[in-house]
Amino acid sequence: MNSKAYRYFLHCSYDGTPYHGWQIQPNANSVQETLNTALSILLREEVYSIGAGRTDTGVHARHMVVHFEVDQVLKDCERWVYKLNKYLPDSIAIQRIFSVSKEFHARFSATKRCYVYSIDRHKDPFSVNKAWLYRGPLDIEKMNKAASALLQVKDFASFAKAGHQSKTTLCSVTRAEWKREGNQWNFYIEADRFLRNMVRAIVGTTVEIGQGKITLAEWENIILSGARSEAGVSAPACGLYLNKIEYPIEVEGPLG
Amino acid sequence: MNSKAYRYFLHCSYDGTPYHGWQIQPNANSVQETLNTALSILLREEVYSIGAGRTDTGVHARHMVVHFEVDQVLKDCERWVYKLNKYLPDSIAIQRIFSVSKEFHARFSATKRCYVYSIDRHKDPFSVNKAWLYRGPLDIEKMNKAASALLQVKDFASFAKAGHQSKTTLCSVTRAEWKREGNQWNFYIEADRFLRNMVRAIVGTTVEIGQGKITLAEWENIILSGARSEAGVSAPACGLYLNKIEYPIEVEGPLG
Repeated sequence: MNSKAYRYFLHCSYDGTPYHGWQIQPNANSVQETLNTALSILLREEVYSIGAGRTDTGVHARHMVVHFEVDQVLKDCERWVYKLNKYLPDSIAIQRIFSVSKEFHARFSATKRCYVYSIDRHKDPFSVNKAWLYRGPLDIEKMNKAASALLQVKDFASFAKAGHQSKTTLCSVTRAEWKREGNQWNFYIEADRFLRNMVRAIVGTTVEIGQGKITLAEWENIILSGARSEAGVSAPACGLYLNKIEYPIEVEGPLG
Repeated sequence: MNSKAYRYFLHCSYDGTPYHGWQIQPNANSVQETLNTALSILLREEVYSIGAGRTDTGVHARHMVVHFEVDQVLKDCERWVYKLNKYLPDSIAIQRIFSVSKEFHARFSATKRCYVYSIDRHKDPFSVNKAWLYRGPLDIEKMNKAASALLQVKDFASFAKAGHQSKTTLCSVTRAEWKREGNQWNFYIEADRFLRNMVRAIVGTTVEIGQGKITLAEWENIILSGARSEAGVSAPACGLYLNKIEYPIEVEGPLG
């Protein structure tokens, strides 16, 4: 994409159920392509959005941040938010559009990413495709012991998808905890960066610890092994939410 | 239905989107029929459930109470809850089944019914069909003045559906208030009984007050007129939830 004169940040949320993930791909419905099309049609120029990260098929976002460039100054961003929301399908909502300096990049300027994984402990007709329904017994204290061990880990190779293309598997996890919240048990995890499939692999493995299938000693070995085959199965996509992305305060500067 | 030996209460919740309401009717998908079929197949006898009330097409229930009778004693009701939840579609969940004395009736023994109506003030991909999306300006103070006037009303004929078959239009409303809760404005209304379409007519009319289309003086006239034609339009079904039904404490007695 050639550089254009003006850069904007956009905040959106989406129900990932009908999409093959965030990223554009041939012959599949993606959030990125749906957004690009809406922006291009409404702004009457070809617009290409860059997301802060990817979400896989069926994974949701309560707060995704993207940037895009245009040849025009967008006066009255609130009106564009309104128009985009009218145009886009029910499954995607825009919260905000604001001007940023071209030094800021949705992906590279992000300092922290926050995910939440939701398990329904009882059947709930209002969270179909929006949580993982798991009714069996789980020991949340053990799951939290396992989670807190992640704060000491530097290399997350054990939770990287086989054949991943990341240059490094180093991540700095600053929060990892399970909380009981009504009918849901929610796992909150925050880091500077995440490897592909990392959260779902961690959730799947800590759930196996909660089930008693994996001991905390084995968990230590999984973390140290650096081999994905040692960890448990990935938790289903429908329970995962990209919940927040943080940027330096300057991003939402006087232009915002 | 002939009387059978044992009577049980059942608590359930449902997403009303795929149903033509609670009540059985020819050539339409109803919650009641879906539940009757599941109970009859799993319990291997013909079971007919009686709901505490009806919900219209697309209206949801977070807490519906029904009773049914069977020829057998249901040992281990928790196991039946589990089996029913496995058998029923995602849109219906059972929370509890418990034995009651035959003097208790899901509909006639209920002392209070509580509804909530949810308006999304911004587009939310996670509440499609589960709230009414209304973004325009609304004066919540006026809406609450209108709501509180309902506590003095005895006859709700103004909010009864034309051609209704209720013997009386008297209701005792004990709570009626709008609350801002995050992105949602929720209307809480509680009464001993409700007329068909009453909550949606009240919500639709108080929203027109919030929009400035109807004054509080006109509202007084609507309440006193007793004619449904005077009130505003009904709010969409998707925002309405049957939230709770209360019974005398004896219902959940030592048998429960």
